[in-house]
Amino acid sequence: MAKEKSDLLKITKQEEDYSRWYLDIVDRAKLAEESGVRGCMIIRPEGFAIWENMQQTLDKMFKDTGHSNAYFPLFIPVSYFSKEAKHVSGFAKECAVVTHHRLTTNESGEIVVDPEAELGEPLVVRPTSETIIWSAYRKWIQSYRDLPILLNQWVNVCRWELRTRPFLRTTEFLWQEGHTAHATFAEAEAESQQMLEVYKTFVQDYLAIPVLAGRKTENEKFPGAEHTYTIETMTQDKRAIQVATSHNLGTTFAKAFDVTYLSAEGTQEYPFATSWGITTRLIGTLIMVHSDNQGFVCPPRIAPLQVVGVPIFRKEAEKENVLAKFQELQAEFKTLDKFSFKVDERENLSPGFKFNDWELKGIPLRMEMGPRDLQNGNVVLVRRDTGEKIIVPQSELKSKIPELLEDIQTSLFQKAQEFQGQNTYSVSTYEEFKTGIETKPGFYLVYFDGSPEDEETIQEETKATGRCIPLGETSKPGKCFYTGKQTNQQVVFARAY
Amino acid sequence: MAKEKSDLLKITKQEEDYSRWYLDIVDRAKLAEESGVRGCMIIRPEGFAIWENMQQTLDKMFKDTGHSNAYFPLFIPVSYFSKEAKHVSGFAKECAVVTHHRLTTNESGEIVVDPEAELGEPLVVRPTSETIIWSAYRKWIQSYRDLPILLNQWVNVCRWELRTRPFLRTTEFLWQEGHTAHATFAEAEAESQQMLEVYKTFVQDYLAIPVLAGRKTENEKFPGAEHTYTIETMTQDKRAIQVATSHNLGTTFAKAFDVTYLSAEGTQEYPFATSWGITTRLIGTLIMVHSDNQGFVCPPRIAPLQVVGVPIFRKEAEKENVLAKFQELQAEFKTLDKFSFKVDERENLSPGFKFNDWELKGIPLRMEMGPRDLQNGNVVLVRRDTGEKIIVPQSELKSKIPELLEDIQTSLFQKAQEFQGQNTYSVSTYEEFKTGIETKPGFYLVYFDGSPEDEETIQEETKATGRCIPLGETSKPGKCFYTGKQTNQQVVFARAY
Repeated sequence: MAKEKSDLLKITKQEEDYSRWYLDIVDRAKLAEESGVRGCMIIRPEGFAIWENMQQTLDKMFKDTGHSNAYFPLFIPVSYFSKEAKHVSGFAKECAVVTHHRLTTNESGEIVVDPEAELGEPLVVRPTSETIIWSAYRKWIQSYRDLPILLNQWVNVCRWELRTRPFLRTTEFLWQEGHTAHATFAEAEAESQQMLEVYKTFVQDYLAIPVLAGRKTENEKFPGAEHTYTIETMTQDKRAIQVATSHNLGTTFAKAFDVTYLSAEGTQEYPFATSWGITTRLIGTLIMVHSDNQGFVCPPRIAPLQVVGVPIFRKEAEKENVLAKFQELQAEFKTLDKFSFKVDERENLSPGFKFNDWELKGIPLRMEMGPRDLQNGNVVLVRRDTGEKIIVPQSELKSKIPELLEDIQTSLFQKAQEFQGQNTYSVSTYEEFKTGIETKPGFYLVYFDGSPEDEETIQEETKATGRCIPLGETSKPGKCFYTGKQTNQQVVFARAY
Repeated sequence: MAKEKSDLLKITKQEEDYSRWYLDIVDRAKLAEESGVRGCMIIRPEGFAIWENMQQTLDKMFKDTGHSNAYFPLFIPVSYFSKEAKHVSGFAKECAVVTHHRLTTNESGEIVVDPEAELGEPLVVRPTSETIIWSAYRKWIQSYRDLPILLNQWVNVCRWELRTRPFLRTTEFLWQEGHTAHATFAEAEAESQQMLEVYKTFVQDYLAIPVLAGRKTENEKFPGAEHTYTIETMTQDKRAIQVATSHNLGTTFAKAFDVTYLSAEGTQEYPFATSWGITTRLIGTLIMVHSDNQGFVCPPRIAPLQVVGVPIFRKEAEKENVLAKFQELQAEFKTLDKFSFKVDERENLSPGFKFNDWELKGIPLRMEMGPRDLQNGNVVLVRRDTGEKIIVPQSELKSKIPELLEDIQTSLFQKAQEFQGQNTYSVSTYEEFKTGIETKPGFYLVYFDGSPEDEETIQEETKATGRCIPLGETSKPGKCFYTGKQTNQQVVFARAY
């Protein structure tokens, strides 16, 4: 255990090395680890339990909005993949390609790819599934009566990445991808906005992550989309991170796959598509937004474990009494079924070690109880977010704990929202922007009317990209910070993950 | 709709062409379809909803027995894969291999694999994950305190198949794979038997599929396993179908990946492994065991929809009244929350068409209601399994429906169990067996003490394989049906899917 105490609990301080701090939390909270397979991570049980909670909540929201789940193949023939020009150019450079279907033993006795087993047509491991799904929709969509189609799938996808970082950018990751088909552009538009709203509600209400909702600029759109909607948040090093996207794909894929339907009026029409997704990146985002130098901080509503009990005792008799009381409370909480609770009964570990360990793992509330507390009928509750210690009579726990969990949830959201507000700036000239982004990183709201080429130049010069055109802001006209032209369009620029 | 009525509802009769009958049900009940990608299927929403119900129930059973979920990479480097000789020889011939990480455009403008982007080491798309998981366990297992490790993952896997059939044998399929590590052989043995029991309970209680539980013969064991346990059932064409397997892997993978732990006594020991899995094949098994010439038959406890209401009316006024009553019932059932219910309000379709359609889809109970029923305060309930019509007063529905659903569940199980019993034979000589398996297909329980080579000969001569050595049968010694030697071992032979 000596090793555990000294090394395993140590975390680089955020202010010393933000990037190292992030990796330390992923590692020490046992959320994920390198697999030895280039760019692929292992999501450990502690991390996967968070993903399961996310899936469960979101899946219900998808079903409540009329969607069903299905499953489409992992492998996409290159010929399908190539049917939509923008799509293939957006994904061809970063995909895993299956070319053979057998291994064999060579003359030296080594296991190698069997050259005799080359596929007639190579298969791409899906980086996203528009092409394989629309090739199926071609059969499914004949008449206006077949529309809308509202499907989703929870799957693994693969995008070959050169520089990877657990959760944030990995070659293989998990996600859900919704793919819908509609009779009109307006319906597809409404669907893509509805799903953005679903994501926003989920992320704000469950993950306590405040987001900026907007539309992507031309440069940042999904390859083949008419509109891409996004929600973005701010990390503690004041960069932007994309949380979810929702695309109105127009008739791009219907045309590429020759999908038409007979309208009620008897004409042949192209259906309209949307797609929308959220990934395991969300777990990385949770770290980036809420965690601190003590470790991971998990918002109560998404935490696999909400309250952990740590018994304190010196003598064997004390131990028995304390554990008995904890078991009694555990039984009571179980009947109540309002929060999850577990007692840390591990032997040979000091309370201090356990405190650190559960802080590291981000459990929202810790309950300490020793012989004196037992005598007084109290426990000590310690908030993970603030470290605040609260002495609570045991009789009040069933109301006090849910109350505190809700307060932690709200506080995390507010703290992140204030931080985002404090680091959001408005500037009116490119010079101001260049100095600002260098000296005071954050979100920069500017009037922008430049071309995609202008946006590229800005990125080259400042490493900042147009994150989104915020929704719902009815802005008065102003002067483009880059071209000087009059425009109504405001864009948030930031350096991003 | 003309096409729907004539073609889409037609199913080949089981007795005419069993194989075609199976494919027709998969297709007409919209459970799955060919994807155009060799050997890969699309699981349609109707089929996927069944898989989701299976996942939900099983996942809870896994967690109740102490297991957690995690996620390990899709890609396995050939060098990992090759570490265990039996394992690689068992899977190398049927795996998808990723050799490149980029596509490019060639001189003719075609999208092709980029020869410049060849991987240093090819990656196998997981056919099963023992190797990648045990390479991680090497880091996780240091001391006896780290054991047991009880993990599971729900993922896609790929085994390159030449002849495929939806659900039963596909190149890509979905499954869960449990992978555990234990300090002793006895613990691993107990775990592998416990998980077989979990599968048996699930399959019998939820899928109404009666199973034979047993141990695999040497020939049929998982590559690298000490013991493989299996549950098998009988299809309506009297073949065996493997439903689930659970393996005691001994120290095979610990040795291959050099995993040892420090015991409480201070010695270095190899940990013991198990793995166990169940796949989307289960959906095919449901068809094979319960379905009939009218279509799919889904046991109520796993059915995504349990009761469907079909309104009957001629005039507009009748329609309004009938639908109003249905909506009233729907609201009542929703409050009750004891079964799922939906009213088929589709326009322009006759009640007859709807009856056929829901029969095809296997919905356990249909509720018909027309103007006369409205007047009498009755509905007509029709059982999918027997076609029996039952007139029930509306006031009794809330107790009668759950009762009928339970009765359907039990009846399906009993019917399948009787069928399995009627087609199980005991024979004592190989001659009897050869004639029997040809003229009266089914399960053949025999005394068997032959070698793996004998078993192969039997397979070559009769197309039957040793399905399992049944558990829990304390058999008196008898004479091996093949070698004539005295033995205690009984084996069930059958032709299998």
